[in-house]
Amino acid sequence: MSTKKFILQENDIPHAWYNIVADMKNKPMPMLNPKTKKPVTVEDMEPLFARALAEQELNTTDEWIEIPEQVRDLYKIWRPTPLVRATGLEKALDTPAHIYFKNESVSPVGSHKLNSALAQAYYCKKEGCTNITTETGAGQWGAALSMAAKIFGLELAVYMVKVSYHQKPYRRSIMQTFGAQVVASPSMSTKAGRQIITNSPNNQGSLGTAISEAVELALQTPNCKYVLGSVMNQVSLHQTVIGLEAEKQMEMAGEYPDTVIACFGGGSNFSGIAFPFLRHKILEGKEIRTIAAEPASCPKLTKGRFQYDYGDEAGYTPLIPMFTLGHNFMPSNIHAGGLRYHGAGSIVSQLMKDGLMEAADVKQLEAFDAATLFARCEGIIPAPESSHAIAVTIREALKAKEAGEKKVLLFNLSGHGLIDMTAYDSYLAGDLTNGEVTDEEIEKNLEDVSDLKI
Amino acid sequence: MSTKKFILQENDIPHAWYNIVADMKNKPMPMLNPKTKKPVTVEDMEPLFARALAEQELNTTDEWIEIPEQVRDLYKIWRPTPLVRATGLEKALDTPAHIYFKNESVSPVGSHKLNSALAQAYYCKKEGCTNITTETGAGQWGAALSMAAKIFGLELAVYMVKVSYHQKPYRRSIMQTFGAQVVASPSMSTKAGRQIITNSPNNQGSLGTAISEAVELALQTPNCKYVLGSVMNQVSLHQTVIGLEAEKQMEMAGEYPDTVIACFGGGSNFSGIAFPFLRHKILEGKEIRTIAAEPASCPKLTKGRFQYDYGDEAGYTPLIPMFTLGHNFMPSNIHAGGLRYHGAGSIVSQLMKDGLMEAADVKQLEAFDAATLFARCEGIIPAPESSHAIAVTIREALKAKEAGEKKVLLFNLSGHGLIDMTAYDSYLAGDLTNGEVTDEEIEKNLEDVSDLKI
Repeated sequence: MSTKKFILQENDIPHAWYNIVADMKNKPMPMLNPKTKKPVTVEDMEPLFARALAEQELNTTDEWIEIPEQVRDLYKIWRPTPLVRATGLEKALDTPAHIYFKNESVSPVGSHKLNSALAQAYYCKKEGCTNITTETGAGQWGAALSMAAKIFGLELAVYMVKVSYHQKPYRRSIMQTFGAQVVASPSMSTKAGRQIITNSPNNQGSLGTAISEAVELALQTPNCKYVLGSVMNQVSLHQTVIGLEAEKQMEMAGEYPDTVIACFGGGSNFSGIAFPFLRHKILEGKEIRTIAAEPASCPKLTKGRFQYDYGDEAGYTPLIPMFTLGHNFMPSNIHAGGLRYHGAGSIVSQLMKDGLMEAADVKQLEAFDAATLFARCEGIIPAPESSHAIAVTIREALKAKEAGEKKVLLFNLSGHGLIDMTAYDSYLAGDLTNGEVTDEEIEKNLEDVSDLKI
Repeated sequence: MSTKKFILQENDIPHAWYNIVADMKNKPMPMLNPKTKKPVTVEDMEPLFARALAEQELNTTDEWIEIPEQVRDLYKIWRPTPLVRATGLEKALDTPAHIYFKNESVSPVGSHKLNSALAQAYYCKKEGCTNITTETGAGQWGAALSMAAKIFGLELAVYMVKVSYHQKPYRRSIMQTFGAQVVASPSMSTKAGRQIITNSPNNQGSLGTAISEAVELALQTPNCKYVLGSVMNQVSLHQTVIGLEAEKQMEMAGEYPDTVIACFGGGSNFSGIAFPFLRHKILEGKEIRTIAAEPASCPKLTKGRFQYDYGDEAGYTPLIPMFTLGHNFMPSNIHAGGLRYHGAGSIVSQLMKDGLMEAADVKQLEAFDAATLFARCEGIIPAPESSHAIAVTIREALKAKEAGEKKVLLFNLSGHGLIDMTAYDSYLAGDLTNGEVTDEEIEKNLEDVSDLKI
């Protein structure tokens, strides 16, 4: 049982976010305006995004971006978060590896998503918005943003992916308790949603579709901006508080990670924990592996193609240079709703292309085996998303055992699974399937976006 | 929004529990063996309880009882817990009062219950048990004990009150994920359960009934002990880590509470936060109010009678000197399942009788009004149980406002409500009722136990 916990003080909360783009030799290719095929500008983004956020999105020069005092002050509600040595899990695996996890599940809404939600709500409020819209998969992002919106006095509409809306009703209730409007996506409330429902009435939704609906509503609502929980550079930026804290805590533990692991949907929590460590790889040539753990049923990094693609299903967003399965990809109904996204953010995609990071795919059953073992060893029931990171950590710990090597592994526990118990019910009842996808399906789906190939 | 958080270090976790009985001038009257009507001895208790726990139960002399190193080490998983100044709530109420809360919701199972669960599981394991049984209402205790049992390698059977079993299915899943057996109570698996079901087939259960079932199973299972989450002196003892930490944190804040408030079911979280403060009232005459917040539909302290009564429905336990509504009292189906208990522990009952503490009753709708306001001001969705404490805190803060007095209020946020979202759904939909009880019903119920009057 883990009892080694490394605790920082409030003055250890970072004062600036880390912008990895400034340090990358090969910068991510630019996002393109789909009509003009020219690089997107701050002005292009402004109808949809707060200006400060658009500027962060396109900032390729400043290594550090100051965290506004009010945001940093709100981080104190639950930050700094603990770093924990998972001695119980180590013992159960009988591994010489040392396993650490950064516990982002301690936020009042249960995940790392609050790090960016508070920042985005802050800038929207500062620039005079009254309303914001967003999408959410499993609801971790929606719950975080609902809390942030209420704090800043913003009205929020959330499009929640339909399969998650039904799998995870408590997250809908959490959002509503914070005063947000929640709609199952695809819905009849937008053109994008109506079109999908008309074409496939039983469509269970995807993050790509929910983004289309949220963007459409934002564009049609006065004084309204769109905010989002992953994929974009600004989100990766805000999440780096995770890794910046973790670096200090690994120092307290007197160790340095050989490998940093996080689950991967669009990249928010992976970027958050990995980028501050990758900084030393880029700047100092430090040997460190970072592994993105993605679902085998939504394998954009391990089986997708690097090319331009839309961030959403309807094609409202700029063209993003990304590893993608095609923006019309419909992932199977796995419980890790936050990982059901067709593409990877442009920074991560570039890092992947340049061999600066790795990816591994995990089947749903392996993820829940890992989750249940972790819960029973460490006392924390992990989110289905985070369980993918745990599964890859266990693989690495067992490799270390086989090799007889002491490796230091660090993973991000991005959230707890207390609102995902129907998934655990299915698992314990033996009803859970892997929900895979065939290479043929991926191939066929990519064909639809072959005109966007680089 | 609250951003004032007072954080202790791991070496600030108490090394000893505080046993208030040693300091009480009027000790609680003894528990009685129902057959002999003689005071219960450690030997009487041993068939059902670990010896060390039975000794703690009857210890009237030692002011401090050392926390075993292994238990204290496990406390480090989440302790020390934060003390938070609720500046957001203060602002919303426009009150001169300073409101603090001790945040016990940060435990991995979401409530204070883990403080005693780990201690009881430790002693049972140390004395060679292989199996334990317990009851749970809302499931906070069951979830905590499931985790503790798994850590110590004990097999656990939980009788969960039927109404909560259906209202809060995720808590059942949490227990099962930790490997516990969970049965809805009343069940057909015990004589006590069968009798109740036979007499009233739609009986939705109560903590009193669930205790009867758990006790019966423990007595019939080899190498098995019964453990419980409230009412008993040993539980109050273990929970005092809450108040002991809070004292240090109030010192960090440079204030001392005028009033300490906690919700009240059997007394575990009230005792935990209040007893260390009451120590100074008893020993030094310090002026401090402590208020137990109980549901108006289960008002043992405000409308019950002080007398001997059984701790359970079937009459398996010793006779306990308690404020009671009668051990056959069937509370209405409020969502605060942890407060649906007919009696108060013997220490609290004596303190109440001696005027050393107060009680206030709260209707369900007032509790949820308070909970929703708190969530929207402080970002944490509270458990329905804890919401009773928030409601009484708000009353006191508004009184302070009316009187123009700066009062310092401290309440215990015993748990979060993320698993209780169906309750919030009902509230938001306007479906929630108060679930009260009439004086006549109480009177009638107390008549049934008038032979046990003192």
